Amino acid sequence: MTRVLLASRNAKKLGELRRILADADVSGIEIIGLADVPEFPDAPETGATFEENALAKARDAVAATGLPSIADDSGIAVDALNGMPGVLSARWSGKHGDDQANLDLVLAQLTDVPDERRGAAFVCTAALVVPGGTEVVVRGEWRGTVIRAGRGENGFGYDPIFVPEGETRTSAELTPAEKDAQSHRGRALRLLLDHLRSLAD
Amino acid sequence: MTRVLLASRNAKKLGELRRILADADVSGIEIIGLADVPEFPDAPETGATFEENALAKARDAVAATGLPSIADDSGIAVDALNGMPGVLSARWSGKHGDDQANLDLVLAQLTDVPDERRGAAFVCTAALVVPGGTEVVVRGEWRGTVIRAGRGENGFGYDPIFVPEGETRTSAELTPAEKDAQSHRGRALRLLLDHLRSLAD
Repeated sequence: MTRVLLASRNAKKLGELRRILADADVSGIEIIGLADVPEFPDAPETGATFEENALAKARDAVAATGLPSIADDSGIAVDALNGMPGVLSARWSGKHGDDQANLDLVLAQLTDVPDERRGAAFVCTAALVVPGGTEVVVRGEWRGTVIRAGRGENGFGYDPIFVPEGETRTSAELTPAEKDAQSHRGRALRLLLDHLRSLAD
Repeated sequence: MTRVLLASRNAKKLGELRRILADADVSGIEIIGLADVPEFPDAPETGATFEENALAKARDAVAATGLPSIADDSGIAVDALNGMPGVLSARWSGKHGDDQANLDLVLAQLTDVPDERRGAAFVCTAALVVPGGTEVVVRGEWRGTVIRAGRGENGFGYDPIFVPEGETRTSAELTPAEKDAQSHRGRALRLLLDHLRSLAD
């Protein structure tokens, strides 16, 4: 069994990666999270791009643990905000990790933005760094629209205000399986499957 | 005396335009503001660009008054925010016109952004629309840096957190005359001087 670290404390992200591996019949890989790594040094994410942040986090994880490590950085890129909140998605309101404050601020900022200019994309980059070996960075995008009031209880972050293309429900109203099949994070993580299979061999 | 409407209720903007005309020895033009126009219909600014907003406001002013009209739209474009707050500068925090809340939010969003990525520009577009005639849109920019805590009592908007290139003081620490000589609004309004001279003739 090859242990691979997902450098995240977010149980939902761990669950999503484990489901994706299971769905793709990738065996021989055990995914562990930061909860299993005592005293992991949390560095602030100061990169200008999702790619920089994901790669820096994965490298830090390798340096701290010696394990092959995956890290992601993700967020919402709103067209009418020139692609922001972007790398600042988790702290857009100034309060790090306050999902409600962050999405309320986006809704307030878009109050006067008409329907035809409310396009957005969820973006996820994922980096896989293998000690002494490969560095891979991949990117998944999920296009949609920012609505005017939140709906739905699933997911996290900006899910309640994002309606994916081809849907009438928000991403917080999709089931976890429906979301995995379409989401930016699902797309990015699936781009790592071949690399993870090689690790398991 | 040709009356020209500056489509603004902001006494500081009126003063700035009057000083610029006086400094340039433009005579024969009387600048009036919206305070002198009863029941002017205030339309929300919904354009995607400063140019759209300035031109729409100047056209509305001509339609409402029949006077040659100038309107401006301005804001701060922060590099690390992909050029935002931009057209949303006056309502960045969701509270329209709350300068302190707006600049506090920018400071909070930039907390982890290092000094070398804190560049910004004040941008002003000004539109001059003459009834049945010319439409001119001009743009002035003023480059600088966003500091980490506000300083200074002059000016308005984001002045306390903006240090112009070549300065150590914030634009809220410059005198009105120093600011006029360099500012985005001064640059834009001076680009209209030749057009205003023609109107006076």
